Amino acid sequence: MTGSSTEEKGRATFEKFRRGLQTGEWSGFTDLLTDDFTFYFPQGKWCGEHRGRAKALEFFPYVTSVFPGGITVASLDRVHVSGDTAMLEFKDEGTMVLPGAPPKPYKNRVAIAFDFRGDQVCGYREYFGSDGRSY
Amino acid sequence: MTGSSTEEKGRATFEKFRRGLQTGEWSGFTDLLTDDFTFYFPQGKWCGEHRGRAKALEFFPYVTSVFPGGITVASLDRVHVSGDTAMLEFKDEGTMVLPGAPPKPYKNRVAIAFDFRGDQVCGYREYFGSDGRSY
Repeated sequence: MTGSSTEEKGRATFEKFRRGLQTGEWSGFTDLLTDDFTFYFPQGKWCGEHRGRAKALEFFPYVTSVFPGGITVASLDRVHVSGDTAMLEFKDEGTMVLPGAPPKPYKNRVAIAFDFRGDQVCGYREYFGSDGRSY
Repeated sequence: MTGSSTEEKGRATFEKFRRGLQTGEWSGFTDLLTDDFTFYFPQGKWCGEHRGRAKALEFFPYVTSVFPGGITVASLDRVHVSGDTAMLEFKDEGTMVLPGAPPKPYKNRVAIAFDFRGDQVCGYREYFGSDGRSY
């Protein structure tokens, strides 16, 4: 991605991220992460800040374990930029399977920020725009 | 704000929005809204989409009613832009007072998008980056 604009990097990274959500094949995305990659997640047992690529290699497969059929991006609505950060608004949906509970339809509006350092991703922040029950 | 960039409009609008959060004096912000202003809120009784400036004139004072001491913006961290939309990441805090419950400290990471039409704000989307208990 050398020489690409932040928006181009944001869109290209999102395609790898989307593939992870959809298929559980996260390596295209996680190969982009710096060793000191830091991320924030808004809810549940992963709520808060996590430091280090190793944590990401636990977290993203955990997401897939909760959505064994994958999460589909229904629409990528906007890609915003400032400096080396791209922030994307999208809608996604899937079926959530948590231990001891029946499978539950899930829909959300989501905003995520990718911070870039060169061609790598060094930061990620996720924000939820709905309660998981509707867009 | 005529002739201002989207980033400038975003920052100026956020100052009026911040004043509403802090003091309950929302008119500086709500005076900017188009009649067809549409907004999304992520949780609780206002979860979802709402259309029309009249709804905003109910909603923002409702926020103040839940935070009678105001909500303080601890930091405005980033202002992203695409086209006529500015998206801001910030942290805020206050004391939440819900009926029948003891006052509760509140902290959150928040992302909001303002859609501009000329000098007015025609859209607003709010996203939560934490669970209200920590940044």
